[in-house]
Amino acid sequence: MTPGRPVPPPLAKPIPVETVKPAYSQSSEPAGSTLAAAFGATSPDSGLVPLTVARRAPKEDDVEIAIDFCGLCHSDVHATRGEWRLPHYPLVPGHEIVGRVTRVGAAVQNFAPGDRVGVGCLVDSCRECGSCLEGLEQYCERGNVGTYGVADPRNGGAITQGGYSTSVVVDRRFVLRIPEALDAAAAAPLLCAGITTYSPLRYFEVEEGDSVGVVGLGGLGHMAVKIAKAMGAEVTVFTTSEAKFGAARDLGADHVVLSKDAEAMAGANRSIDVIIDTVAAPHDLNPYFRTLRLDGALFQLGLPADDMPPVSPGLLIRRRLAYAGSLIGGIGETQEMLDFCAAHGVASEIEVVGAEQLNEAYDRMVAGDVKYRFVLDTATLQEPSERADA
Amino acid sequence: MTPGRPVPPPLAKPIPVETVKPAYSQSSEPAGSTLAAAFGATSPDSGLVPLTVARRAPKEDDVEIAIDFCGLCHSDVHATRGEWRLPHYPLVPGHEIVGRVTRVGAAVQNFAPGDRVGVGCLVDSCRECGSCLEGLEQYCERGNVGTYGVADPRNGGAITQGGYSTSVVVDRRFVLRIPEALDAAAAAPLLCAGITTYSPLRYFEVEEGDSVGVVGLGGLGHMAVKIAKAMGAEVTVFTTSEAKFGAARDLGADHVVLSKDAEAMAGANRSIDVIIDTVAAPHDLNPYFRTLRLDGALFQLGLPADDMPPVSPGLLIRRRLAYAGSLIGGIGETQEMLDFCAAHGVASEIEVVGAEQLNEAYDRMVAGDVKYRFVLDTATLQEPSERADA
Repeated sequence: MTPGRPVPPPLAKPIPVETVKPAYSQSSEPAGSTLAAAFGATSPDSGLVPLTVARRAPKEDDVEIAIDFCGLCHSDVHATRGEWRLPHYPLVPGHEIVGRVTRVGAAVQNFAPGDRVGVGCLVDSCRECGSCLEGLEQYCERGNVGTYGVADPRNGGAITQGGYSTSVVVDRRFVLRIPEALDAAAAAPLLCAGITTYSPLRYFEVEEGDSVGVVGLGGLGHMAVKIAKAMGAEVTVFTTSEAKFGAARDLGADHVVLSKDAEAMAGANRSIDVIIDTVAAPHDLNPYFRTLRLDGALFQLGLPADDMPPVSPGLLIRRRLAYAGSLIGGIGETQEMLDFCAAHGVASEIEVVGAEQLNEAYDRMVAGDVKYRFVLDTATLQEPSERADA
Repeated sequence: MTPGRPVPPPLAKPIPVETVKPAYSQSSEPAGSTLAAAFGATSPDSGLVPLTVARRAPKEDDVEIAIDFCGLCHSDVHATRGEWRLPHYPLVPGHEIVGRVTRVGAAVQNFAPGDRVGVGCLVDSCRECGSCLEGLEQYCERGNVGTYGVADPRNGGAITQGGYSTSVVVDRRFVLRIPEALDAAAAAPLLCAGITTYSPLRYFEVEEGDSVGVVGLGGLGHMAVKIAKAMGAEVTVFTTSEAKFGAARDLGADHVVLSKDAEAMAGANRSIDVIIDTVAAPHDLNPYFRTLRLDGALFQLGLPADDMPPVSPGLLIRRRLAYAGSLIGGIGETQEMLDFCAAHGVASEIEVVGAEQLNEAYDRMVAGDVKYRFVLDTATLQEPSERADA
């Protein structure tokens, strides 16, 4: 842990992240926007319905992308159903976007039509704060600009609309290159589930021979297993269900521990360097801290709606452990992760669905009935109608 | 955070730290023990009374020390009163020991009679596990041997007796050199309060210009302020009492924040790299996490008897924060800390007491009525009686 990175002076007042309104300069919206077919929600209980969204004409730094695939993230469910906060409706979700470049702005040098590209959870940030200058755009101190559902200050404050859509226009700085070695559909979930697990593993400097624990075996958890294995780690999966033992081993796990079996947990005592905890429901972390070695860390990635049970400080003290958090990853690191996955043949395990299956897929995600990520094939979206509904 | 340090294979069964019985080889107790005058407890409600303890004749690696001063740590109160677990009585507390060498064993090269030395919280460890081999004896995987109240396996399993005493015999590997530049009495608390705060600051690599927060201004907290300032950090003290503002500034704090004043806490938002939290009562950590910058950490050093309020994982996630623990420090690091304190003129603020004031001092410690550490002058202990009571 190296402190002292360049960070601007503290703000006079705290800005709760939930209510951040990016305040940096706005530019006017150019004319010539195009229409894209999309699926999204019009109210908390509308389900996902066909919509048409306007996409701006590419400005000089913009990349226009014809979307081929978009992963379905559990966040999409919460957002469209208004479970986190009431969003601007209509809302087109989706932040695991893979497609091909169709047009670029005059100042874009590094992308050309036909390139396979991706867009993850971010489409902009202030570009000026210490976090942004370090390439940690996800921690932008003025609030990053998410791929859907938030005001986009450099584009007239328009509400961003995500990737359940046939096209999107994004500033080149937030466009990723998707290596051709990766399957386009299976690469899509790397842009959220992949980077969210890759980033804490890299931050902890996981290397050959380290021992990595993974709690929960869903969209994030299965990526954590694959990426940790590709990094050369020995991987232990903790699961509440014996039914998942085979699946965990199929993904490459070296050990599987039934977390509700106290004796099995005791057998894993002091065996692990870092744990990636992907469970988004409240759960007792203390049994996992006991499995950590000296100087180990547990990264919690899920955000439960209710309070977590108390952490025992004695466990942290006796082995100098850290209970830590981590949020997706920066743009440069996301590119690094994509290149790493291409080099190691790592991608997501997916089930491709069409637009008409989206609502059923949401219900199955809530029920935990997916191995391990749904990906929308945008070829199944209807053609854009004559006018923009959103 | 660098993982992958050499750590032995995990044990088949967990060993709860509270019940560790060190299992490494025992040696027989040599004859020729001497008697030392001491003060200690004979039951949870005995208070501290005069006792005599037997000290072994120095073995070949031992150092015999005539104790001049011993600091009073809050742990001593808990231990003697049986508030953590029922100890072996009689129990002589004290693990902030400063004195002079009187005799050394045949194999001792680095200490000679007359040297000023100290003993902290540890008098032995297994010396073989990964932690011990790294110089992190406090995290000995087989359980370290505390300076008082625990079985000492290399000395026949005798229960260790601490520094409220006129002498002690300790293996040379656990004896510290006290620089002559330090006042002997004011140096005593460095051996627990000093190293306990120095170690996490060093682990976090605090350096010139970093911002350090200190929660609580008692024995540990006041050392954290002094040491962080000596490291070149900007120091913010968080306190629940406006009455402590002056004292915090006297110690060198650059900023003092009334922690119950929400507006003042908001003013400290995102201003601090690392927080040393010395409060041993349950308290809400979330307001402190908000004062941390990206990649900041809060080290909790106190061990509350009751559950802490829940930590908000969202706060950890949004700034990649760590909630961490830390336990005293290793022997090598303790020597480094003593040399650092001597070089920077840092010592504890103390009130020297005689043996007859010990019980009153304990009551004042419980009431928080001490600035900032009591130190026992062992010259006030009675001469050893004819027989060993303990």
